[in-house]
Amino acid sequence: MLQVDVDRLRADFEALASIGATPDGGVDRTTSNDAHLAARNWFLGRAKEAGLDTSIDPAGNHSALLLSGSEHARTLLLGSHLDSVPNGGNYDGALGVLAALETLRVASEAGIELPITLEAIDFTDEEGTLVGLLGSWALAGMLTDEVLASPRGGVEGLRDGLARAGLEPARLIEARRDPSSLAGYLELHIEQGPVLEREQVDIGVVTGIVGSRSFRLRFRGTRSHAGTTPMDARRDAAVGASRFAAGVREVVVRDFPGCVATVGDIRVEPGAFNVVPGQAFVKLEFRSQEEEQLDRLEDTLLSLARLEAEREGLWLDVDPVGRWTAVVLDPGLRSTIAAVTAALGLSSLELPSGAGHDAQALATVTRSAMIFVPSAGGLSHDPGEHTAWRDCVNGANVLLATVLEVARAANELLV
Amino acid sequence: MLQVDVDRLRADFEALASIGATPDGGVDRTTSNDAHLAARNWFLGRAKEAGLDTSIDPAGNHSALLLSGSEHARTLLLGSHLDSVPNGGNYDGALGVLAALETLRVASEAGIELPITLEAIDFTDEEGTLVGLLGSWALAGMLTDEVLASPRGGVEGLRDGLARAGLEPARLIEARRDPSSLAGYLELHIEQGPVLEREQVDIGVVTGIVGSRSFRLRFRGTRSHAGTTPMDARRDAAVGASRFAAGVREVVVRDFPGCVATVGDIRVEPGAFNVVPGQAFVKLEFRSQEEEQLDRLEDTLLSLARLEAEREGLWLDVDPVGRWTAVVLDPGLRSTIAAVTAALGLSSLELPSGAGHDAQALATVTRSAMIFVPSAGGLSHDPGEHTAWRDCVNGANVLLATVLEVARAANELLV
Repeated sequence: MLQVDVDRLRADFEALASIGATPDGGVDRTTSNDAHLAARNWFLGRAKEAGLDTSIDPAGNHSALLLSGSEHARTLLLGSHLDSVPNGGNYDGALGVLAALETLRVASEAGIELPITLEAIDFTDEEGTLVGLLGSWALAGMLTDEVLASPRGGVEGLRDGLARAGLEPARLIEARRDPSSLAGYLELHIEQGPVLEREQVDIGVVTGIVGSRSFRLRFRGTRSHAGTTPMDARRDAAVGASRFAAGVREVVVRDFPGCVATVGDIRVEPGAFNVVPGQAFVKLEFRSQEEEQLDRLEDTLLSLARLEAEREGLWLDVDPVGRWTAVVLDPGLRSTIAAVTAALGLSSLELPSGAGHDAQALATVTRSAMIFVPSAGGLSHDPGEHTAWRDCVNGANVLLATVLEVARAANELLV
Repeated sequence: MLQVDVDRLRADFEALASIGATPDGGVDRTTSNDAHLAARNWFLGRAKEAGLDTSIDPAGNHSALLLSGSEHARTLLLGSHLDSVPNGGNYDGALGVLAALETLRVASEAGIELPITLEAIDFTDEEGTLVGLLGSWALAGMLTDEVLASPRGGVEGLRDGLARAGLEPARLIEARRDPSSLAGYLELHIEQGPVLEREQVDIGVVTGIVGSRSFRLRFRGTRSHAGTTPMDARRDAAVGASRFAAGVREVVVRDFPGCVATVGDIRVEPGAFNVVPGQAFVKLEFRSQEEEQLDRLEDTLLSLARLEAEREGLWLDVDPVGRWTAVVLDPGLRSTIAAVTAALGLSSLELPSGAGHDAQALATVTRSAMIFVPSAGGLSHDPGEHTAWRDCVNGANVLLATVLEVARAANELLV
């Protein structure tokens, strides 16, 4: 059975971790920052060194290609992303891209006759510095003007981020691939949660990915003097935003078991000791496996925001900035992953993903699946994010074996 | 009866308002920014044009002087400040400095024989960009290493702010004046509250200034993935800070009538949609006329912070950054102000100040008093801050008349 080259994978992992490394052991590779652009460039360089073809599409997705000899061969995408959250960890996204590249190298060196083209792809802006899943939505043909008009990182952030990457906004949609050209999508990723570690299981087979919605809220009151404005004469934007943030936790814990909702940011203006805040900017996100529950969460949490704004005499602006539908991953590919995992002598477990992934976009146009490896302490989006190296190697070998099995099955279909 | 030159005062007011003017009609003259340094320079220039002496002390206080002919004459300080809060208004501080300068010009032109030196002084950093009342505390000899070690604007902010003003940290304390050299302190200021306007009174005679205490709080939890971290596994710093901010309002309204407490800033890290916040930085300030009540507020609010931190499994760091004692202003000067106000045909009212002022520092070393003029809508620390021009002129005339009366009384003492 073919296996990945552990030393080569390790060397790649360490080289990549050094690009945008932070003093506390993580990386800062937000979309289009210097380190992110350097990492993507490094990735193409490593692919070329391995004799692979490379390409960059109009959404900035960076690919290494191992072409099939067959005419009209479909493409099996193996992907993840090289961008990180601000001051993030070394594994999220990076492991999946490196394992995909290693899979192509092993397949290339083994001289396997491939009925399908293998493409290791680094998707643009998975983490949402600009939009979130920008590259994968574009490739899936799901990038709408509506999404681009109210991006997570703001309109200026999107414009600047695209410009830094040499991308033209109007051409992003040209990254769309014809679904009939795709043979599927596979992604290796760290779990970013505590389940696999707790259950002492080697490999997670992902059943589906939660849907999520995100909103920017702005509470607007009256900035006034903190010494001369009596408590009952205040319209304090920070009080409204705080009551809302405290209330989100309370309501979701009480009425929405299994769902998560997060106030990830509160920013207050002007932010001085002696000024009653006139404005507060809040970032809200919530997730669920069920669209119906997302609808109920949206109703409940936005009503809460309106209620708290009213109670404090504030204006409230609500700006939806993200809406990702929950998806179910392909049962056939899930069976294949479970089978090759067992053949490798590893244990596996089916589990849902609470985190969003590029597979969410891909699953809308092609059969898609994800392989999870354990995250120490469930920690992620943090410099302390860690996955044991043995688990990384296991994940890469499961990806490789799954790809070979998909290729074998495709060959049988051809024959 | 001598009166101020209304046109000259108006021209000065408009010239000053143009220095650091913001698009929405206010000024941005935080301590040591370009506009603030320019305004202070402009002030000395105007003093020199009027033939007055000028000086800058080691704390950066800028003064215009009308010297007494008498040997060993004591100095009557007339002051306020030219710095503003970020994006503040045109009246706070500025009016007092301009009226002081105008008072010196009128006295100088009238050729009055003065038994005391008159000094119009622009105190450094009243608003607390760096420390708060930095110049007046220094002059009063009350600037301690403790205060300088944990400044409101942070240690780096203080260092940079002083450097920009050409001031040496070690020499600040040399600004101290011998209390026996001082004949008193008078300050004209806008009320920054609604009382005078509501009561339709021309002039406020300030009985005392509230004490205040301020703290930086840091809530530290665990930053984690907003999709994969269940609600009950979170240690969310933003939730702790929000519950605290909401609780401050509730507790103070319920248990501390007449006091004010403000969470003027909440800052969250990392501040992304998809990351449970690991840290939240909070600015807390509270004020009362009674030291005993300040003690109780401190106990109550810091206990609340500890409680909310504990409830969410957070660490809490508490850093005191300001402690201003409540002061009573001089009954003799207050009577003088009330008397000259009546002689000018204006109405007056005694009232306390909820805002901090340089008079708070001066009152600890010399007899001090403050003259208030109405603030439209009680609004302050805002570009919309406004005082009717007639009220500004009234205030300046009351200041001038009070100075002349103090000088007359000092002359009598000499005779």
